[in-house]
Amino acid sequence: MAKKPLILVTNDDGISAPGVRALIDVMKEIGEVVVVAPDSPQSGMGHAITINSTLHLEKVVIDDGEQAEYSCSGTPADCVKLAVNEILDRRPDICVSGINHGSNSSINVIYSGTMSAALEAGIEGIPAIGFSLLDYNYNANFEGTKKIVKSIVENALEHGIPKDVVLNVNFPNLPEDKIKGVKICRQAKANWEEEFDKRKTPQGKDYYWLTGKFVNLDKGEDTDEWALENGYVSVVPVQFDLTAYQAIQQLNTWDIETKTQ
Amino acid sequence: MAKKPLILVTNDDGISAPGVRALIDVMKEIGEVVVVAPDSPQSGMGHAITINSTLHLEKVVIDDGEQAEYSCSGTPADCVKLAVNEILDRRPDICVSGINHGSNSSINVIYSGTMSAALEAGIEGIPAIGFSLLDYNYNANFEGTKKIVKSIVENALEHGIPKDVVLNVNFPNLPEDKIKGVKICRQAKANWEEEFDKRKTPQGKDYYWLTGKFVNLDKGEDTDEWALENGYVSVVPVQFDLTAYQAIQQLNTWDIETKTQ
Repeated sequence: MAKKPLILVTNDDGISAPGVRALIDVMKEIGEVVVVAPDSPQSGMGHAITINSTLHLEKVVIDDGEQAEYSCSGTPADCVKLAVNEILDRRPDICVSGINHGSNSSINVIYSGTMSAALEAGIEGIPAIGFSLLDYNYNANFEGTKKIVKSIVENALEHGIPKDVVLNVNFPNLPEDKIKGVKICRQAKANWEEEFDKRKTPQGKDYYWLTGKFVNLDKGEDTDEWALENGYVSVVPVQFDLTAYQAIQQLNTWDIETKTQ
Repeated sequence: MAKKPLILVTNDDGISAPGVRALIDVMKEIGEVVVVAPDSPQSGMGHAITINSTLHLEKVVIDDGEQAEYSCSGTPADCVKLAVNEILDRRPDICVSGINHGSNSSINVIYSGTMSAALEAGIEGIPAIGFSLLDYNYNANFEGTKKIVKSIVENALEHGIPKDVVLNVNFPNLPEDKIKGVKICRQAKANWEEEFDKRKTPQGKDYYWLTGKFVNLDKGEDTDEWALENGYVSVVPVQFDLTAYQAIQQLNTWDIETKTQ
């Protein structure tokens, strides 16, 4: 039998979150698992890295199994960097991040710590997938995601993920038998209409909580939002070359003054 | 005379950093300026937002002029959200972020708080530009950037920035008279070879500092790295639709098992 694939598992909800525990369960059926995940929730951290502070790692045992687990004081992107450079003795065959409690679909990919870990692995040339279940409850039921998660990771290991691409997988909040299938999608155009909840401190000073309403601005039926609303699991191939190539020609018509002489 | 454009200024090095003071100086020549910037340095924050903590805003006066200034406890992306929703009484005509002390070129765009503020504005439909000078010194000299910064912002106001695109502008660390011009570029393929500096706490526990070496993997002469190495200011149009469209077809050949039945 071939050597088992080495699977790096991380997330952004923290190492003891039910979502990552479910992901570890599934990955143990496929390969050798090493977990390096934040010691506390890091939702909304985007692609933050820790450059002005120190990083701490702790070997931990959370539940049964052969997986090695490390709790890290840093962000999801830090976890991947530390895993690859300080913990693993060979390159992982794949990095999986999640399963996030909430949504990484459409514009949420930009704010997502889960996806930032996957992107960090992708930047380092490691095949990577971020998973999310559209249920914000801490005790969300991840059982219904397991079969599809496993199949996606097996496909990725077998076929390879296209170069410089990372997968963003979102599950609708439905029981397993209500999931209609898996769709490869594009990122829907959407944004958040922010509303700040303005309050007063006990000392009478204003402060704010960020809240908001998600608005899907995209009528397309090939988007992740459409898939999720219609009972499908969405898979969006995501790239980290952010160049808007189609805009280069237009910008070349600008007349930018460059000389002081 | 037409009404002056409303210009939102932010950054990631903190509201009193020399880079943002230089940017404010230039913007005051063009329009009405409102500054909403972090109260402390936020480098490497990526597109982090503050969702599990409160946000505080303080009206401040830092140097002379008619600009209104607010210091914010949050991330660069938070600053833009607060500015648009709580401070400004009309939509800004443009949002400028920076001038960052360091580099936002190539893969650094992903980790950049400066660019995350510009992207946040772009997501909200506001024309936006991030500026950076490749000089990490706190007391870097921004004088040589001012003429080109002004011309780029004037061009953006006159011609409009292409829809769903944000500009990532980087200046080489050169005196103004050595700058050869401005190039519209694509993002170079590059990454960081991380090295962690492993140390011991006074109590004997391991901890880490993230360090690393930037590696340009791209030989192209149309990249931002090439432009900067050859004495040009680089302008990369950046998008927040991260879909890797070219990968969709390949992924559609995968055989993902979706049914438990």
